[in-house]
Amino acid sequence: MTKIEAVDVVDLRFPTSLGLHGSDAMNPDPDYSAAYVILRTTDGPDGHGFAFTIGRGNEIQCQAIRALVPYVVGRSVEDICSDLGLLYRDLTHDSQFRWLGPEKGIMHMAIGAVVNAVWDLAAKRAGKPVWKLLSDFTPEQVVSLVDWRYLSDALTSDEALDLLRAGEPAKAAGVARLESAGIAAYTTTPGWLGYDDATVERLSIEAVQEGFTQIKLKVGRDLDDDRRRFAVARKAVGNDIRIAVDANQTWDVGQAIAWIDRLREFDPWWVEEPTSPDDVLGHRAIRSGISPVRVATGEHVQNRVVFKQLLQAQAIDVLQLDAARVGGVNENIAILLLAAKFGIPVCPHAGGVGLCELVQHLAMFDEVAVGGHHPDRVVEFVDHLHEHFVDPVVVRAGAYRAPSAPGFSAEIKPETLARFSFPDGPEWSTS
Amino acid sequence: MTKIEAVDVVDLRFPTSLGLHGSDAMNPDPDYSAAYVILRTTDGPDGHGFAFTIGRGNEIQCQAIRALVPYVVGRSVEDICSDLGLLYRDLTHDSQFRWLGPEKGIMHMAIGAVVNAVWDLAAKRAGKPVWKLLSDFTPEQVVSLVDWRYLSDALTSDEALDLLRAGEPAKAAGVARLESAGIAAYTTTPGWLGYDDATVERLSIEAVQEGFTQIKLKVGRDLDDDRRRFAVARKAVGNDIRIAVDANQTWDVGQAIAWIDRLREFDPWWVEEPTSPDDVLGHRAIRSGISPVRVATGEHVQNRVVFKQLLQAQAIDVLQLDAARVGGVNENIAILLLAAKFGIPVCPHAGGVGLCELVQHLAMFDEVAVGGHHPDRVVEFVDHLHEHFVDPVVVRAGAYRAPSAPGFSAEIKPETLARFSFPDGPEWSTS
Repeated sequence: MTKIEAVDVVDLRFPTSLGLHGSDAMNPDPDYSAAYVILRTTDGPDGHGFAFTIGRGNEIQCQAIRALVPYVVGRSVEDICSDLGLLYRDLTHDSQFRWLGPEKGIMHMAIGAVVNAVWDLAAKRAGKPVWKLLSDFTPEQVVSLVDWRYLSDALTSDEALDLLRAGEPAKAAGVARLESAGIAAYTTTPGWLGYDDATVERLSIEAVQEGFTQIKLKVGRDLDDDRRRFAVARKAVGNDIRIAVDANQTWDVGQAIAWIDRLREFDPWWVEEPTSPDDVLGHRAIRSGISPVRVATGEHVQNRVVFKQLLQAQAIDVLQLDAARVGGVNENIAILLLAAKFGIPVCPHAGGVGLCELVQHLAMFDEVAVGGHHPDRVVEFVDHLHEHFVDPVVVRAGAYRAPSAPGFSAEIKPETLARFSFPDGPEWSTS
Repeated sequence: MTKIEAVDVVDLRFPTSLGLHGSDAMNPDPDYSAAYVILRTTDGPDGHGFAFTIGRGNEIQCQAIRALVPYVVGRSVEDICSDLGLLYRDLTHDSQFRWLGPEKGIMHMAIGAVVNAVWDLAAKRAGKPVWKLLSDFTPEQVVSLVDWRYLSDALTSDEALDLLRAGEPAKAAGVARLESAGIAAYTTTPGWLGYDDATVERLSIEAVQEGFTQIKLKVGRDLDDDRRRFAVARKAVGNDIRIAVDANQTWDVGQAIAWIDRLREFDPWWVEEPTSPDDVLGHRAIRSGISPVRVATGEHVQNRVVFKQLLQAQAIDVLQLDAARVGGVNENIAILLLAAKFGIPVCPHAGGVGLCELVQHLAMFDEVAVGGHHPDRVVEFVDHLHEHFVDPVVVRAGAYRAPSAPGFSAEIKPETLARFSFPDGPEWSTS
């Protein structure tokens, strides 16, 4: 029997604030960080996963993952990998840990990191990338991975089964399409708030040259700045390229509507995180107020219950799940199923460190087996920190190419783990 | 100048699971715990505060508080106490910490613990209990304590000012009423799910004899058990005593409505936490489905944005704020103001360790200066662990008596801190 014999937790931080990469109206100086976890097995591959943070507090996130170690060490890898809902349910249903959320914040992200590491492990053992492992599951297997608590007023497991079964005949064609064309990406690289106009212009032009048909700009700190930068970007890319804007939660409801009204002339494709991610009713009001400009949110939405309500309330046009904020792959399957039921495209949040690597698998599973092909499904791409991954994303001609290596593409190179570990790695201790 | 010269953090745990005190449908075996913080000053009183947890993970909560120490140590006590919104804003607006919530879960509870410790310190320096310190503030001072971000679609600071000003003339009479009669309490002591019928009966009778006019029963694990226990309690207390029930988040929306329908004959006063605390729309649907039985929630509601929506959606009849889950006194002032605007009584959650001690101050401030007197305002009381406090609550004839000692009643005796500290205190290391 193969067992999990140890769990390594690494506090990994990259000094990204130095270049103002990642700067936005809410987060002026992030140091992209990962609370990184390795499930060490007695035999065969290890499992890798992480929570993503932006610097201070990453040590708390690591501590939360360490608190889960007694649940994991000594367990049979065969048991865990033959029922991939098992550990997720055990962890989210521990009543004492649950008190610290419930199902939100640091504790939930810690569970997500461990659950994602289990998926990396299971996929490696199956010899498939996660997107393919999931796509090969039967509808019954997929439904068994979800925690259905709190969902039945919007979606029952029987409805989910029907939905997945209806998609079965098209799965093979979906895999073929994915392996030949990949899945559309958009880029946030030109739009960080800390960049000057010349940089915005240059990077916008480059994005189009690289084949992207959508870019995204950060907004929300200063309206005049936003109008000037948006004009620069619109001029640079022309009228056929979609430009989304992202306010990173800075506005109140009325303020969001008024601000977007002043950006309308530049034709924003969607407005992302116009207000608090907790504010379902606020998003609904903003959507009514800015239509036909779309409303997008999700990277800070804490769990399936809030996504359920965003969909029930018709508060969003675009659902932006995050791979590392909710309870891992399992909860994201619930979120994909909810979005499919309500007919809303899922355009995952990515960037940070490793989020592109993870979400590509979820978007590809969605494309093949859940929501099916959707013309507006685009996956965020940010060209940062991929060089640290063993199996980095490949984005060509504006599309993510389907990964073929077994696993979740989550594994960071050992030399990176050593160099950027905080506070003792050479990147931090010698500066 | 007086400075904060050190911050002590104590991982304090009580082995309450041994007696099944605190057992409910979601939490079968809590060990009531506190991540306890002491702001040590160079001169004069210290400030005490805590986050409440139920056991495992309290070490993560402590770690989160420790991460805030650099914000606190070295600061001028005069500065912090002369602008009691200052530290709260600094802590909640730190963008890197904010990523770990935002404004929810472990990080937010850590901020709440530190903010509450500042209030304890400020009230001790002012020579007043917190409820009186707050009640003596002008409307302008109260409004300045709130972070108004995300609230303006429901309540603006100007509306709050009007509301507070309208209550000014009645404040003196409110203080006098409070000092003579106290504020009504209800007791959860008879209703823990782990108690047998004879215990439920005995404790229900005792509650009425002690002067309580409302008790609460835990429900939601087994319908037949709930019906039997409810019948026992109803027979014991008669028809004039209110009996609330508390499901601790166990149900889906439809299940809650069906279950409550089977309890109607026993006349439940309110149903508490029928489903996920994140589910605003779910609470609204349940409220429609069980009327005229009331819906109550709040102990796990993460912040003012979710409370705002519960009120906007008319999803609750009773708002149960918690002193130690949101961002401390400051955020609870926002929540009290929202409730007053919408005319919903605030009946704070208490119990655990020290929550009764804290919430009495908030309820009394509400009574005197915010919501005014409300016939349905009752404050939860659970008769556990008060002996560990320097200034424990006094509940007589079914009412909390107004505390007169300066501070937030938050201070735990030093011998308790030593005995129950985890894992090295004698209560844990010798068992």
